[in-house]
Amino acid sequence: MKPTAELLQDILAEVAPLIGQGKVANYIPALAQVPSTKLGIAVYTNQGEVFKAGDADEAFSIQSISKALSLTLAMRLYEQEDIWTRVGKEPSGQAFNSLIQLEMEQGIPRNPFINAGAIVVADLLNCRLSAPRQYLLEFVRQLSGDTHIVYDKVVAASEMMHGDRNAAIAYLMRSFGNFNSEVIPVLENYFTACALKMSCVDLAKTFSYLANKGISVRTGKRVVSVTQSKQLNALLATCGLYDGAGEFAYRVGMPGKSGVGGGIIAVVPGDMTIAVWSPELDASGNSLAGTRALELLSERIGRSIF
Amino acid sequence: MKPTAELLQDILAEVAPLIGQGKVANYIPALAQVPSTKLGIAVYTNQGEVFKAGDADEAFSIQSISKALSLTLAMRLYEQEDIWTRVGKEPSGQAFNSLIQLEMEQGIPRNPFINAGAIVVADLLNCRLSAPRQYLLEFVRQLSGDTHIVYDKVVAASEMMHGDRNAAIAYLMRSFGNFNSEVIPVLENYFTACALKMSCVDLAKTFSYLANKGISVRTGKRVVSVTQSKQLNALLATCGLYDGAGEFAYRVGMPGKSGVGGGIIAVVPGDMTIAVWSPELDASGNSLAGTRALELLSERIGRSIF
Amino acid sequence: MKPTAELLQDILAEVAPLIGQGKVANYIPALAQVPSTKLGIAVYTNQGEVFKAGDADEAFSIQSISKALSLTLAMRLYEQEDIWTRVGKEPSGQAFNSLIQLEMEQGIPRNPFINAGAIVVADLLNCRLSAPRQYLLEFVRQLSGDTHIVYDKVVAASEMMHGDRNAAIAYLMRSFGNFNSEVIPVLENYFTACALKMSCVDLAKTFSYLANKGISVRTGKRVVSVTQSKQLNALLATCGLYDGAGEFAYRVGMPGKSGVGGGIIAVVPGDMTIAVWSPELDASGNSLAGTRALELLSERIGRSIF
Amino acid sequence: MKPTAELLQDILAEVAPLIGQGKVANYIPALAQVPSTKLGIAVYTNQGEVFKAGDADEAFSIQSISKALSLTLAMRLYEQEDIWTRVGKEPSGQAFNSLIQLEMEQGIPRNPFINAGAIVVADLLNCRLSAPRQYLLEFVRQLSGDTHIVYDKVVAASEMMHGDRNAAIAYLMRSFGNFNSEVIPVLENYFTACALKMSCVDLAKTFSYLANKGISVRTGKRVVSVTQSKQLNALLATCGLYDGAGEFAYRVGMPGKSGVGGGIIAVVPGDMTIAVWSPELDASGNSLAGTRALELLSERIGRSIF
Repeated sequence: MKPTAELLQDILAEVAPLIGQGKVANYIPALAQVPSTKLGIAVYTNQGEVFKAGDADEAFSIQSISKALSLTLAMRLYEQEDIWTRVGKEPSGQAFNSLIQLEMEQGIPRNPFINAGAIVVADLLNCRLSAPRQYLLEFVRQLSGDTHIVYDKVVAASEMMHGDRNAAIAYLMRSFGNFNSEVIPVLENYFTACALKMSCVDLAKTFSYLANKGISVRTGKRVVSVTQSKQLNALLATCGLYDGAGEFAYRVGMPGKSGVGGGIIAVVPGDMTIAVWSPELDASGNSLAGTRALELLSERIGRSIF
Repeated sequence: MKPTAELLQDILAEVAPLIGQGKVANYIPALAQVPSTKLGIAVYTNQGEVFKAGDADEAFSIQSISKALSLTLAMRLYEQEDIWTRVGKEPSGQAFNSLIQLEMEQGIPRNPFINAGAIVVADLLNCRLSAPRQYLLEFVRQLSGDTHIVYDKVVAASEMMHGDRNAAIAYLMRSFGNFNSEVIPVLENYFTACALKMSCVDLAKTFSYLANKGISVRTGKRVVSVTQSKQLNALLATCGLYDGAGEFAYRVGMPGKSGVGGGIIAVVPGDMTIAVWSPELDASGNSLAGTRALELLSERIGRSIF
Repeated sequence: MKPTAELLQDILAEVAPLIGQGKVANYIPALAQVPSTKLGIAVYTNQGEVFKAGDADEAFSIQSISKALSLTLAMRLYEQEDIWTRVGKEPSGQAFNSLIQLEMEQGIPRNPFINAGAIVVADLLNCRLSAPRQYLLEFVRQLSGDTHIVYDKVVAASEMMHGDRNAAIAYLMRSFGNFNSEVIPVLENYFTACALKMSCVDLAKTFSYLANKGISVRTGKRVVSVTQSKQLNALLATCGLYDGAGEFAYRVGMPGKSGVGGGIIAVVPGDMTIAVWSPELDASGNSLAGTRALELLSERIGRSIF
Repeated sequence: MKPTAELLQDILAEVAPLIGQGKVANYIPALAQVPSTKLGIAVYTNQGEVFKAGDADEAFSIQSISKALSLTLAMRLYEQEDIWTRVGKEPSGQAFNSLIQLEMEQGIPRNPFINAGAIVVADLLNCRLSAPRQYLLEFVRQLSGDTHIVYDKVVAASEMMHGDRNAAIAYLMRSFGNFNSEVIPVLENYFTACALKMSCVDLAKTFSYLANKGISVRTGKRVVSVTQSKQLNALLATCGLYDGAGEFAYRVGMPGKSGVGGGIIAVVPGDMTIAVWSPELDASGNSLAGTRALELLSERIGRSIF
């Protein structure tokens, strides 16, 4: 069965009652103020069709979804071994910001989607790009076709003010020799990337290269190689949902990446990308209603990688 | 491209030079004595074709591959919640036999494929089946069509003699209220299941239900529901390769389950099952040449879930 | 200032109001039933005088205080290196029954007073004595002069029924090669030793060798060498109070050993031994009113090792 | 038996052969260059006598011994609860610079002598003193009577350059709300304090208040109260020797504090202070020959707290 706007509408109606059972991220005020009733979904097919429902055109803070974009950029700029000697490819098996594992594993983060790993990726980008923030902004504007995408500077500044734990992570990695830049500027880049504001439609279009063997459906240009596209999907499938990757695979069955802003991007390789948004999170930090919406969509259209 | 016997032969020739770079499991004598030069592969398609090369018909100790079979049986016998309240669905992020995580998470194992989780599954089977070992044996004989499959009693006894750590795991879970039987008999069942001797051809046929939406290709009978089949594949993809699940997804891109005997079973949903065997293991405890053979096969036939 | 019965009476009156602020150990019914209002103290000087107040003559379950007796026996039976290669001498820095540290440190317990260490000591005694329980019983009867001391079989049996965690500890150590006997019989000995019933007066007399350079004040016989006596006091001072050794040293300033039955034995080397009993425990598992009574006594008589 | 210069000489001769079996700290060049053959000892009695041997008058980097001085200052400036709500009093049971425990215990360091705890103390001093470094310098000059004591600026700068792990510790504590100043200036104060250069004679005199109920033997002035003096000795006895406190108590039987520069200060309450120096360290980071010298001295003069 094909996705349609009606199907998406039905799904949103079905998951709406979940609102109230999760918890909006509140570690910074700017995120805590987002209305918990926001709910949107967008599908972008490999044929270039857009289907959407709810608040699919409203921009929100993509937060950790940006980690998949930063890794894509790093894979374009570096040889494989330059990346994977500094960060692993394995699920973390722990809360997404734990220092314990990082210390036990000698400063090598488990994967590029936990904070420590994303900070290593930010360090990589910082060493090779003269203006990493501008570069990332142009990248998403081009892939999505939305020239109005911006960083939310209030969010970025607020994250930085609450960023002591991430500073601890960066310094710990530097003590193990796995960090090459000054800590503070890299953290600023990292928090700024997390503060990208994008809509579900923006996100679904931006990530279309992961559903289309590395080529952006919208621009027709190659973003990553076929192999890199598979590799990125593999990393998303095993590590993309914090400490809930197994549950997400079990229920949804798609590679995906979530953010504490309540967004999730999911990929059906060869078929489509899907973006959902609902700010309330479950215990693992993933959008509660968003995950359920993806689960229903997977069932209804009969698509999953398994 | 389709798999053929020639392709499989070529792949074995290509990976053979890796032999010597891994390490045969030696924690029990019976496994340590297996010649490291053994090398086999078998493909079983959803059309019922068998392709094979090398030592594909020689039986070996399937070890942890049995955990996927035991979980399949448990999913047939129990409601979902009876299983998933006692064992998680998340990658472990630690060495496959660590007690640390088990203690920190109050006796609930991370997933059914680490030792602790498989021992919980053995406890579940023990509580519902009058003769769990006989039941499992008949299950694999029927699915594979090979009535000569047996348990290797020397291996089972040897494992039991070196089973103190698994006894510690079981007692620890019992102290948290997550173990309902006597420890020793359950461990005997657990070790006996691991001591199943099967060939690559046996394994590929046995697991065909995971590639065929829950229906055994060989018998035409339903083993698990469509949804359960997807769930099992999801669990294999995120948790099936010990501490190397991420790397395996990145390189091979198929749900899989490995054993320290050097076997790996992999699934291309909708298409085929593949079994490889090469006793030498990599640092994560997965067959070194076997993983590489699956990686090459995935490339050559252009099949992966990503 | 010298201890007197009046002083002890005053101290008990002063600490009595603390009763109600702690928590009686309730992991086994037999301990949970002890009235929380019990309160006793006894001092035994190196001149052989006994001073006492409150329930000083009532026998209670000495629990972990027995670990100091078992270690004393082991030090009499074994060379130093036979003991200290199998168990450490360092504070554990963790909850007293944690398996985490034991796994990280390869099955070598931190010290002989955490459960793991005491189980190693029980294994040592089991390997050298034909009847360890009878031997220990005669040892305390002789040192205290109280021939009515017995094991509480109900307590011992109850502990054994709740002993899964200790079984896990023993099996884990055996998996590391640090356990030489059958697990179950050693655990029975261990739990039986913990189930010794002794009064404050019994305990103060029994441990007098630690205050008197290794010679029992009551019998005049040497129990351990001068050096061993110092070593035992050093171990009590750094490791004797579970996870509260530092706090106890800070407030009381005496080597000591506590049990979850609410007893504490303390030593003023060269001077006296003191035993207190009050069943309610603080967060570290040490007698709440008992610790305070020792702190007051230390202040009033101006005795401490610091 | 009384200490004499001859006795000290004999002891140094006896421990000298140990030189070569330990390892000079080499994490910063300035420490690595200290000749491993340096060996000195000084005793300062409560009667004001000085006995010394070897390199007892040569100044060396006192490193972590400074943590006992900083804590003394903090105890003079703050109420008890202001200190002990922010740092514990328990042995750490782990390597002295581990972040794992700090994270598990919510940013509250185990005790004031591990790095994390000493950094909290530095934060406390920074919040109350306008010039903490000058204040500490005057404190030791006055207590020792040696006006030539200085900070080694090369050492301090070198520590700061290798201080990433300590920065990680400070940021982690700040993320838990247990750090009130800017991180970098406090670390500079902390490393500067560690870079104090003092001789064995200086150290023995400086710490005389711990042997003399809080009053400096040299100046006759009260440094801390009688109770605080006992408390400081208790903390030294249980936490002063990194991960070797239990072993030190077992062998030497005195409260003490060591530094990676190879110095150790030890206290016999009511009697004397002793300082030793030998740069080679044992596996726990304590002076190898220095510990043995203290052990021999304790045996020969028959003094220990046990």
